[in-house]
Amino acid sequence: MSTHQPVTVREVGLRDGLQSIARTLPTARKLEWLRAAHAAGQREIEVGSFVPARLLPQLADTAELVAVARTLPGLVTSVLVPNLKGAVAALDSGADAMLLPLSASHAHSLANLRKTPDEVVADIARIRAERDARGSRCLLEVGMSTAFGCTIQGHVDEAEVLRLLKAVLDAGADRVGLADTVGYADPLQVSRLFEQSFAVVGDRLTCGHFHDTRGLGLANVYAAWQTGVRRFDACLGGIGGCPHAPGASGNVATEDVAFLFASMGVRTGLDFDALIALRTRVAQWLDGEPLHGSIARAGLPKTMRRELA
Amino acid sequence: MSTHQPVTVREVGLRDGLQSIARTLPTARKLEWLRAAHAAGQREIEVGSFVPARLLPQLADTAELVAVARTLPGLVTSVLVPNLKGAVAALDSGADAMLLPLSASHAHSLANLRKTPDEVVADIARIRAERDARGSRCLLEVGMSTAFGCTIQGHVDEAEVLRLLKAVLDAGADRVGLADTVGYADPLQVSRLFEQSFAVVGDRLTCGHFHDTRGLGLANVYAAWQTGVRRFDACLGGIGGCPHAPGASGNVATEDVAFLFASMGVRTGLDFDALIALRTRVAQWLDGEPLHGSIARAGLPKTMRRELA
Repeated sequence: MSTHQPVTVREVGLRDGLQSIARTLPTARKLEWLRAAHAAGQREIEVGSFVPARLLPQLADTAELVAVARTLPGLVTSVLVPNLKGAVAALDSGADAMLLPLSASHAHSLANLRKTPDEVVADIARIRAERDARGSRCLLEVGMSTAFGCTIQGHVDEAEVLRLLKAVLDAGADRVGLADTVGYADPLQVSRLFEQSFAVVGDRLTCGHFHDTRGLGLANVYAAWQTGVRRFDACLGGIGGCPHAPGASGNVATEDVAFLFASMGVRTGLDFDALIALRTRVAQWLDGEPLHGSIARAGLPKTMRRELA
Repeated sequence: MSTHQPVTVREVGLRDGLQSIARTLPTARKLEWLRAAHAAGQREIEVGSFVPARLLPQLADTAELVAVARTLPGLVTSVLVPNLKGAVAALDSGADAMLLPLSASHAHSLANLRKTPDEVVADIARIRAERDARGSRCLLEVGMSTAFGCTIQGHVDEAEVLRLLKAVLDAGADRVGLADTVGYADPLQVSRLFEQSFAVVGDRLTCGHFHDTRGLGLANVYAAWQTGVRRFDACLGGIGGCPHAPGASGNVATEDVAFLFASMGVRTGLDFDALIALRTRVAQWLDGEPLHGSIARAGLPKTMRRELA
């Protein structure tokens, strides 16, 4: 693939970021974030999750966010959905895409969804049937979580990841992504697993989701990009951190991923100054929550400012 | 090159780290650090710099450190040397190697050494002559600083870097390394410049020196490793930060580089727990100085602990 192909940075801060912190950001603030992210050039935003409000009160306003997100020109609005009930809510909301998590780790799957990975595959088939019965065009994307290792189970077998990728596509998912949910991946592993996955599922592999827990987030993004991935999840300010490693980073920071690609001359369509300004506002709204990421502290290199000017 | 070839992490904390902070670490502490770093498996350590004590009082005890370092089995002891006078002191001290900085940025060279890059090349020829006249086997390594950009000049021409690499080898340097002194490099640029440099100077290119100022430090280490580099500078705890970007990281952290390679299955000979324990002690000695790096906060992944056990 060409190195000149643009890269999409999918914002997951409103879902993965906010679900990881205890406080609930008021809906008005979320809408401000959503609109500012869109104005900064973000064209794919995961605005929330259709899970029971008693489990994640932080995301109880997801339908409201989808309604506004749908009015923003050119925006792909996605939501996370853990089961058929959530998928029905997502279809009702009119979201463009739903992200269905499936843990490649058997132990993580049982702990997180109380289902085995193959039970989740069966759910995906039911969700696909529901979508088709409605004549909806909502995209079904499976996020293969713990694909690079698991805090409960430890090692995750690559053959099992490949088997499950194939299984979810056979069950009716439109596309798949690989997620290093807990920050265990290294760049060589990323190269290997993405190459193997592309060989098995081809261009239906469309996303890399990396955490910076152990400092390798951007190296892993780069390694995945080298294999041909052109779409990455990221979270503004790296908010949310890592529940398994207090004090450590969680998702790679949107502005750092934007900087990585900008510095490589790869277009993302993102307005860097607008992203940093939004990060500053989000930091104020979440006063006291630790933010992560490097570029907001260091500022752009002189070489890049000159090129942007 | 084989991915199974081991990697050497050259510790520069006692020089690059300590010269960047105002306080002076007592010699006894430095010696404790030196011995513990050696015990943790570090086999190349830059123990200081032969510059006038009025300029860098923090490093005034360099000769004393070299004397002790020489007694540690298997350790390559190096010192930074800015000119012929420093080189004479280095040769007198019995250091195994001297690191001669040369700025590829004309403006940085003038600001830092008050000499043009070509005047520094002429110095290197004089240093080589002095070494040979003494029958010394002290290695002369040139660190090509600001090779990826400069805070003063901005853009640095790749052709100029290649010209200077060749010039310093012609002038008598034994080997060369490329340094991203100010954290401007991106992985594609690193790939390109290292590949071009290997094509021009071959296996006399032996080191990559990266800063993590903007979060790309480990991605750049990985990109350089992909081109065949098997030796990297790093600084325990990333101490020293970046003088050009307050609050930002400086040198890549030794323990993070060790983790990157360990997670990739590449041997470094480093004892991870010993490095982290030493980092904790250095943090106490430098109480109040910000340390950097990710793995010390997050801890090793379960997968790695299991493999190490």
